[in-house]
Amino acid sequence: MSEVIVRPEKLQEFAAAALQEVGVKESEARIAAEIIVTADMRGTASHGIVALRTYVKQILCGGVDPDVDIEIVNEGPAWTLVDGHAGLGTLTAYKAAILAVNKARQSGVGVIGVRNGNHFAAAGYYSLMMTKENMIGIAMSNAAITLAVTGAAGRVIGNNPFSFATPAGEERPILLDIGMSVAAGGKINLARDEGRSIPLGWLIDSLGNPTTDPGDFARGGAMLPFGGHKGYGLALMIETLASVLTGAAITKDIGYWYKDVSEPCNVGSMFIAIDVGMFMPIDEYKTRMDHLIRLIRSAPRAPDVERIYLPGEIEQEKEDHARAEGVSVSDITIDSLRELASDLGLLEEFGRIVKLGGDDT
Amino acid sequence: MSEVIVRPEKLQEFAAAALQEVGVKESEARIAAEIIVTADMRGTASHGIVALRTYVKQILCGGVDPDVDIEIVNEGPAWTLVDGHAGLGTLTAYKAAILAVNKARQSGVGVIGVRNGNHFAAAGYYSLMMTKENMIGIAMSNAAITLAVTGAAGRVIGNNPFSFATPAGEERPILLDIGMSVAAGGKINLARDEGRSIPLGWLIDSLGNPTTDPGDFARGGAMLPFGGHKGYGLALMIETLASVLTGAAITKDIGYWYKDVSEPCNVGSMFIAIDVGMFMPIDEYKTRMDHLIRLIRSAPRAPDVERIYLPGEIEQEKEDHARAEGVSVSDITIDSLRELASDLGLLEEFGRIVKLGGDDT
Repeated sequence: MSEVIVRPEKLQEFAAAALQEVGVKESEARIAAEIIVTADMRGTASHGIVALRTYVKQILCGGVDPDVDIEIVNEGPAWTLVDGHAGLGTLTAYKAAILAVNKARQSGVGVIGVRNGNHFAAAGYYSLMMTKENMIGIAMSNAAITLAVTGAAGRVIGNNPFSFATPAGEERPILLDIGMSVAAGGKINLARDEGRSIPLGWLIDSLGNPTTDPGDFARGGAMLPFGGHKGYGLALMIETLASVLTGAAITKDIGYWYKDVSEPCNVGSMFIAIDVGMFMPIDEYKTRMDHLIRLIRSAPRAPDVERIYLPGEIEQEKEDHARAEGVSVSDITIDSLRELASDLGLLEEFGRIVKLGGDDT
Repeated sequence: MSEVIVRPEKLQEFAAAALQEVGVKESEARIAAEIIVTADMRGTASHGIVALRTYVKQILCGGVDPDVDIEIVNEGPAWTLVDGHAGLGTLTAYKAAILAVNKARQSGVGVIGVRNGNHFAAAGYYSLMMTKENMIGIAMSNAAITLAVTGAAGRVIGNNPFSFATPAGEERPILLDIGMSVAAGGKINLARDEGRSIPLGWLIDSLGNPTTDPGDFARGGAMLPFGGHKGYGLALMIETLASVLTGAAITKDIGYWYKDVSEPCNVGSMFIAIDVGMFMPIDEYKTRMDHLIRLIRSAPRAPDVERIYLPGEIEQEKEDHARAEGVSVSDITIDSLRELASDLGLLEEFGRIVKLGGDDT
């Protein structure tokens, strides 16, 4: 698969223009565009600009309302229940993360539950957002079913995303951003597209048999949870917090966002902020966090290992690199953006993405 | 390894008597005894009565203060920072779980951080406690280092325990109670004692090489985190919440509770309660939880699988069985309790454990 390098700002501008074209307010389109392009910069293209065309389709077909605000259904000193009213998932999540920070500033902790949400791209964006306010940030969501549980033959639960981030001092924040499967669905589909087999333990076929054929996923197979019953249990914990508790759809009642574009998916999510400065002076916390980070980084290394990474460190370095040198986007994605541009009458805006040059920024 | 079946109440009475003998108040000794014997009943003997002798040793040698209360260092509407003052870990955790429930009843959410704690046996006990108050309960703790992280050759972080529990309606509560290693340390040591090798992927030796020799664990080897970087990241999340944020000892500064008995271990822990009834009527939540449980239980089963279990279901059935028919304790543990009884002058009390009979309860 070949790739082109483009300026992230240009990619963002195009994404924002496309979203505005289908009815998203300018200020909000810019936020949504930043969230998805950040995923591309961090090397998680599956949650990046590739989703733009589907988001637009969801808006055009009625699955997503482009111009709706969140509603606070109920709240208390440390929590809020939010109805996303089928707005763009990234915007609902962004607003919920801000609510979490505000509650935490008041009460030390903020727990925000969201119903009627939609696909929110990378969970980690919202956790990392909260660290900028000196908060520990947690974000999670349920998702359409793609994962088996221990002993099951088919799809039972979503590959529910979970992220945790903490501020640090001289060190960069730590960001854990994971799904509950052994290997991401995007990795399995890529293996299929490239004609490779996958390791045993990633996937079962539609009858529940272990398989190395990545094509079995699209034929109704199910991904396996990481760590067996442990990953299964964590997926269930997320389903409980993000969905059972918020009133969102549960497992099989959630639509596949990339397929069921004309119906709201009613995804559930939860955002938790903890105000570090309540527990101890923020500088003391940051010094302690730096200490932990350095203990891990300087641990003796296994044979042939050059460096021990902290969670999120590889992605942060990719982001730094992409901001300086441009972000890499696959040809296939570029083609799909060109088609989108053509559909929306934005070919001029599209042209600005790919005309890369030092004097063009 | 052979086992004897004893009445759990008798085991609890003996444990309580032993703790009282070394200075724990009667009411508190009963609570601690119930916590540890519950672990035996649930089939997790490694966190059960086998620990009693070490707890007593910690008290006698000064690592644990048998008669101290927790101190509230600081608090807000939805959180409390607690100093455990090196009291018995089970009692500190029990009290912190009650504080979490009380805060959640006030503010919807209660986050309790604990410093100067000690080994608290099974995390799940405290989560399950909170479900009895119609709360979602989370408990976690750091621990002395036994786990490698991705790329490391040695022990870098603890096999930090984490538990999550939720109430249900007609169904039993769900309880996820996990450590961050692929396989528990107790399982590795048991393989060593029985002369069996272990699968590749559980352990690395002290140089960081993969090993199938369980004896490498005691020779400075390290367990591997489940799911590779995912389990590593979760262990780090727990270390951050339980310890960096609370002021407890961090990774290598935590003593091995079963070895460093004369010094307080300064374990950190965190307890989170969410008052379900704030988010929706409790009956609605319970109906939704039952629905999710039944969806999972009735999923198509993989070949040769007879039944799909929910997290904690196997352990709950073991507990039910143990309450009715008696709890199974290994000969080795019984011998160690006899020695303890002899040391403390409690041989008469010890005799009541093993004299099992229908008319003796």
